[in-house]
Amino acid sequence: MTYRPEDVWEDLERIRTRRPLVHNITNYVVMNSTANALLAIGASPVMAHADQEVEDMVGIAAALVINIGTLSEQWTKSMFMAARRAGQLGIPIVLDPVGAGATPYRTRTARQLLEAIAPAVIRANASEIIAMVAADKRTKGVDSTAASSEALTAARTLNAEFGSVVCVSGAEDYIVGGGRLFIVGNGHALMARVTGLGCTASALCGAFAAVRREDIIRATASAMAVMGIAGETAARADGPGSMQVMFLDALYGLTRRDIEERLKLTVQEL
Amino acid sequence: MTYRPEDVWEDLERIRTRRPLVHNITNYVVMNSTANALLAIGASPVMAHADQEVEDMVGIAAALVINIGTLSEQWTKSMFMAARRAGQLGIPIVLDPVGAGATPYRTRTARQLLEAIAPAVIRANASEIIAMVAADKRTKGVDSTAASSEALTAARTLNAEFGSVVCVSGAEDYIVGGGRLFIVGNGHALMARVTGLGCTASALCGAFAAVRREDIIRATASAMAVMGIAGETAARADGPGSMQVMFLDALYGLTRRDIEERLKLTVQEL
Amino acid sequence: MTYRPEDVWEDLERIRTRRPLVHNITNYVVMNSTANALLAIGASPVMAHADQEVEDMVGIAAALVINIGTLSEQWTKSMFMAARRAGQLGIPIVLDPVGAGATPYRTRTARQLLEAIAPAVIRANASEIIAMVAADKRTKGVDSTAASSEALTAARTLNAEFGSVVCVSGAEDYIVGGGRLFIVGNGHALMARVTGLGCTASALCGAFAAVRREDIIRATASAMAVMGIAGETAARADGPGSMQVMFLDALYGLTRRDIEERLKLTVQEL
Repeated sequence: MTYRPEDVWEDLERIRTRRPLVHNITNYVVMNSTANALLAIGASPVMAHADQEVEDMVGIAAALVINIGTLSEQWTKSMFMAARRAGQLGIPIVLDPVGAGATPYRTRTARQLLEAIAPAVIRANASEIIAMVAADKRTKGVDSTAASSEALTAARTLNAEFGSVVCVSGAEDYIVGGGRLFIVGNGHALMARVTGLGCTASALCGAFAAVRREDIIRATASAMAVMGIAGETAARADGPGSMQVMFLDALYGLTRRDIEERLKLTVQEL
Repeated sequence: MTYRPEDVWEDLERIRTRRPLVHNITNYVVMNSTANALLAIGASPVMAHADQEVEDMVGIAAALVINIGTLSEQWTKSMFMAARRAGQLGIPIVLDPVGAGATPYRTRTARQLLEAIAPAVIRANASEIIAMVAADKRTKGVDSTAASSEALTAARTLNAEFGSVVCVSGAEDYIVGGGRLFIVGNGHALMARVTGLGCTASALCGAFAAVRREDIIRATASAMAVMGIAGETAARADGPGSMQVMFLDALYGLTRRDIEERLKLTVQEL
Repeated sequence: MTYRPEDVWEDLERIRTRRPLVHNITNYVVMNSTANALLAIGASPVMAHADQEVEDMVGIAAALVINIGTLSEQWTKSMFMAARRAGQLGIPIVLDPVGAGATPYRTRTARQLLEAIAPAVIRANASEIIAMVAADKRTKGVDSTAASSEALTAARTLNAEFGSVVCVSGAEDYIVGGGRLFIVGNGHALMARVTGLGCTASALCGAFAAVRREDIIRATASAMAVMGIAGETAARADGPGSMQVMFLDALYGLTRRDIEERLKLTVQEL
């Protein structure tokens, strides 16, 4: 199935026009860079984590992004509070389980959040997605096709269990939901040398979900496509320092033509 | 009334010569970028928030900047401690009530800080300044002139109540104090696409207040003029990523001639 | 004694090949910039501070970097836990006592960490190194040669007491250990205008120690040489903003020839 570049463009235009407020409860490492990415794309970022205000802040936001990159008890408490309120209000939640699998505490917290939240979108890399699947339900991918790797199997399991759109990012991004698999082929290897671009992808998923609530898998595909195309533009940089700078410029300046000429997005039935 | 560009230059030169230590208790998003801005302009930044040390740190600083952008109970406790000590020592305080009006917790905390601190300078955007005025004292601006907007009315109210110089930043920056209104016309719309430039403005207000304690309104006007002129230089950038970089370069390289040729600063009696 | 440029190159190549995981418990200001520097040089950074996970995270890391730049009780507790575990596992620890001497709390905490950790490397500027020497053991340098400044005397005292390699960074970097003094002459004055490059140096010391555990003084000398050479490349920048960007690009692109042509590293017996 083909995916129309004009859909990505239309979603981006909605962000630029509506300037949705995206509430982030995220890690210390990427607060500045994800706020800048959200601003560059046209959204309005806010970072707030105090338990005294997260419910009020969610109440004025159009999306909530929860990222456990530098988690601690006080912060996860606020994540649960904010997520519960977002659930009540029907505000889409993106969960980024940074480092799930690296320590038992992260894996456990990520899993608890997942069960409490039922996020609209889970975005993570392959090892994190695999770690999120409860040990007793984990199966090895046995099919021979490339698309049925262990991570994709895990993504399907999570989607079936929680109803979340699941995005496994990597050289190719896999997005699973509604019986379909979207594959985004955009992006560049140098992106892995800039800290927090995965977290930025999750923040952008929040911005796109905010303006395309009625079709979360489309929103996620558009977000990942925009990430990848901007990353390709920025990969003309001399190294990761200037790439980070050019990436923000690319998000800001992304044109309809960039998307039409370069989008690599395919859709399959699962 | 005219304002002399050489006054701005003289204030900047003082910072470059004296390298004042500016103690920041600020938000996670902008710690890096405001530290870099302070270094670029010639000041010495320090970030410290532990209640065990904030009083000692204030004791060796030339200014204190309090910014509630990612506030929580533990941090506000330290803000009060540091501010009290700064008050005892006569060290100028800049208060940046980030997000006042967005949640009741922020508005309340900002107001409590204001009442406890009586800061030398309050710097915020229009909606934050309006939110800082206690509800029972809030009045709608009724005058017909442009300068008497609701925010300016709020700024005058805060100035009258607390004696603070009040800076309302925006397309034009309004600075109220001592019966005068300074208007800075420098700046560029692209600055709003870089996260934390408002917070940077507050940090620079701290650096200027540190070296021009005897004339805080002048210090604030100089700070905002330098922000705006550097922002204009950086607006030649391709987008917000490179603008952030060029802004630091511009602060670092700002010349007397830049100020003389481009300063847009007028003064009115109120 | 001469130091061979190929040793620096070989250490750098090891990082690029092995991609060691460097666990940082560091300050809010530099989390993003040090993570980016570690990625640029080829290492894998992780930031984690929750007491529930620091021991597990250290267990999968190849080095631990402890930096007290924005310390508080909760964080120092985790620093002690992580360091104890690293000690048990034989994982090298780098201690950066940011701001030791500025407040009693910092000096005391830095000293307590030092005594509990016995770090492989202490990296700090001259005043911090001097502050780390217990007051009763502090002596003024009385020799007339340049290399016997107060800081160098303090470095020798710390090395004798704790067995740590001690790096005093400045216009020239002095590295003391094993009866030898390494002097790195690379670097550029503009580096002092970019926040957190000292913290970056400590993080790189962690990456080099991770791959050259058997010779920590060599690892530290290589780290400081690479810092300095990359800093010189980046000093062609227009100011501190673009320098920060070019510094990451320079770390990423550093060649064997850069090191061979520009290394300024001498070794003396002490």
